Amino acid sequence: MATRTILVTGFEPFGGERVNPSALAAQALEGRLVEGRRVVAVVLPCVFGAAIEALERAVSATDPELVLCVGQAGGRGALSLERVAINVDDAPISDNAGARPIDRPIAPGGPAAYFSTLPIKAMAAAIRAGGLPAEVSQTAGTFVCNHVFYGLMRALAARPGTRGGFVHVPLLPEQAARSGGAPSLSLERIVRGLELALATALGPDVVAGRDLAATEGATA
Amino acid sequence: MATRTILVTGFEPFGGERVNPSALAAQALEGRLVEGRRVVAVVLPCVFGAAIEALERAVSATDPELVLCVGQAGGRGALSLERVAINVDDAPISDNAGARPIDRPIAPGGPAAYFSTLPIKAMAAAIRAGGLPAEVSQTAGTFVCNHVFYGLMRALAARPGTRGGFVHVPLLPEQAARSGGAPSLSLERIVRGLELALATALGPDVVAGRDLAATEGATA
Amino acid sequence: MATRTILVTGFEPFGGERVNPSALAAQALEGRLVEGRRVVAVVLPCVFGAAIEALERAVSATDPELVLCVGQAGGRGALSLERVAINVDDAPISDNAGARPIDRPIAPGGPAAYFSTLPIKAMAAAIRAGGLPAEVSQTAGTFVCNHVFYGLMRALAARPGTRGGFVHVPLLPEQAARSGGAPSLSLERIVRGLELALATALGPDVVAGRDLAATEGATA
Amino acid sequence: MATRTILVTGFEPFGGERVNPSALAAQALEGRLVEGRRVVAVVLPCVFGAAIEALERAVSATDPELVLCVGQAGGRGALSLERVAINVDDAPISDNAGARPIDRPIAPGGPAAYFSTLPIKAMAAAIRAGGLPAEVSQTAGTFVCNHVFYGLMRALAARPGTRGGFVHVPLLPEQAARSGGAPSLSLERIVRGLELALATALGPDVVAGRDLAATEGATA
Repeated sequence: MATRTILVTGFEPFGGERVNPSALAAQALEGRLVEGRRVVAVVLPCVFGAAIEALERAVSATDPELVLCVGQAGGRGALSLERVAINVDDAPISDNAGARPIDRPIAPGGPAAYFSTLPIKAMAAAIRAGGLPAEVSQTAGTFVCNHVFYGLMRALAARPGTRGGFVHVPLLPEQAARSGGAPSLSLERIVRGLELALATALGPDVVAGRDLAATEGATA
Repeated sequence: MATRTILVTGFEPFGGERVNPSALAAQALEGRLVEGRRVVAVVLPCVFGAAIEALERAVSATDPELVLCVGQAGGRGALSLERVAINVDDAPISDNAGARPIDRPIAPGGPAAYFSTLPIKAMAAAIRAGGLPAEVSQTAGTFVCNHVFYGLMRALAARPGTRGGFVHVPLLPEQAARSGGAPSLSLERIVRGLELALATALGPDVVAGRDLAATEGATA
Repeated sequence: MATRTILVTGFEPFGGERVNPSALAAQALEGRLVEGRRVVAVVLPCVFGAAIEALERAVSATDPELVLCVGQAGGRGALSLERVAINVDDAPISDNAGARPIDRPIAPGGPAAYFSTLPIKAMAAAIRAGGLPAEVSQTAGTFVCNHVFYGLMRALAARPGTRGGFVHVPLLPEQAARSGGAPSLSLERIVRGLELALATALGPDVVAGRDLAATEGATA
Repeated sequence: MATRTILVTGFEPFGGERVNPSALAAQALEGRLVEGRRVVAVVLPCVFGAAIEALERAVSATDPELVLCVGQAGGRGALSLERVAINVDDAPISDNAGARPIDRPIAPGGPAAYFSTLPIKAMAAAIRAGGLPAEVSQTAGTFVCNHVFYGLMRALAARPGTRGGFVHVPLLPEQAARSGGAPSLSLERIVRGLELALATALGPDVVAGRDLAATEGATA
């Protein structure tokens, strides 16, 4: 029987940065075996529209059991497991093709939102048990990260056998070195955290659709 | 012809506070005329389930043209116009009846989210033009505020003639006085900001369903 | 017997702002009687050197019993009672005359720092008891505010009968309206907080040199 | 000619933590050669009074050319080069012996403050050039870290040939894993950053008493 695939995506650099930890982490995971599945890594353009198209091509080409999209979140200090993707693009900065949509639906007529189908509480707990900072996040923003997360969940809605979700990761220390005092996390730790997250999502303890009963909500 | 109604709701105090600015602001608006409509104020319990039931009763009783639910957001310094309500309760603290649900759908089988049907960009701009701080927020949390916001939009989905949304307001200065350094806003300014927001949502410049084309998004 | 004087100073606007709450608050207090003393208000230029010269002239002219210098602190949500002024100018932005000194002593050969001679803990407690947010701050920065605070305490070191200190105040709501989400406090509340602070510093309960035994320190 | 010594101190864990990155980093540097000087590491108790006594004994025993005291700063994401130590203990939490002094002078009759005698701007620039986050800090707080920093500079005031200062370091990732979302930095990076800082302070480019002319101040 063929080895099943995990698709992990990152983004090319944006917003004036020279690197993007999400792409470096995805590439570092390329080819690794996690719970018997093999990771395929793809770097997406930081461009509205084109990013989802590239993601959909990768999903079709790899027929993955699980998809984890990863993006950079300057200002956050922990691996952020995103709970929900919303159906709107509202860009505070331009994407890498110069586009800056305002309040535009990602999928006109599509659902207002999709929830992650990954066990985000169990994944956060596993990352922390591995000695790395993790949190559940209630918003993935309204830029290309949320755009791709929404596009992913919409694509997977038509593929019942594939689960997926999104994780935001901190800046690398060398990026933080250029922006006084911002939190950061090393590439090796980001990679290790993603690996723990993937192993948890695929592990025998997680029945698909069930998650750890742990509160990680917010009052506002 | 009868004067149409604006329903404004606030919450009773929660989380150890003795007051809740949202209830005080709603009560201050009670009876006021805004763009020819009369405000009816209702204070909701800070209790999962019961809060939505009380809201639904108030909507039925008042048959409003517009509903604005208001809640307290400790830590925020501006009137926060919420963009989206999500279909989950994940309580970081207990509600006023002692309940603390984890990852429970508000409406099992309901949509993952509802967007506000108010012109949140135009409302934010109007509040600022009035000299008061305002922002668009991408998350209303996962506690009773988001719960009521979701319940509101679900109820209004069956009432095409009624628009609605949610605004989070800062602590009052006297609340901030008991929690070192937290941002605050005076009750009179919160009331004034809500009034500006309501006037904008009902004003001749806002065609229903259209909003100001201004970016207020977030990268993450 | 002549009424004694309280000197309250504010600053002219800086950093692109059109107003400065510290100047407006000082002017609002002009002429008021606090614990039997009369307030004299002076607005200082936001200029290294010239600000201290103007302050020294005002001290000589008014022979005050107490001096309270006030400055604007964007990003802070509470009245900040400053503990200590340090002997260095290190300007992150240009002053209103275009100067931007780096690591320059305010008084070459002078002490490294001066502590406020006002009862900052009792003043913070009194402001809070009045329902307004207050905090003790361990740094007044390294710009013109710290510069004036240091110049004040150096001048008062030669006037044993005069006590003095510095308070940072939040932005006004109308300033925060132009900088998304920043904390603010209304002018009337800033004025009321300063009045409570002055009354406490001059009140019968405060023996000169003694303060409330309340912890308001920081681990780092 | 004997190899000269660099004294690097860290602290034992405090505030409920099981480790303290400052102690681990000091111990990791023990015995290393930096610019021809040898590092001696000492772990200080997190106890008012006893910490300074242990530091003074270490200074006497090692006769160092340079002393760098290191402490943990939860909430900070960068290596923080402290500018100034102030003559006050005001403890927001108890030290490891249960003491919680309020507004007590560290050295009665001593100077209000001492400035670091290390080139903090050049050190920050060197850490950043090495791809690690660094910042200059205007306050070391009022707990045991500031206490030791003040005690150090007071001791060195009597030893003209020895320079010294203080650096705050972030939590380790495994500490941040237990406190949702706090910024962190790995031990190897903290150690590397301290090494870069020490090499800069001892390097041929730094004339004693001169520092890089770079602004790292704060408005408030």
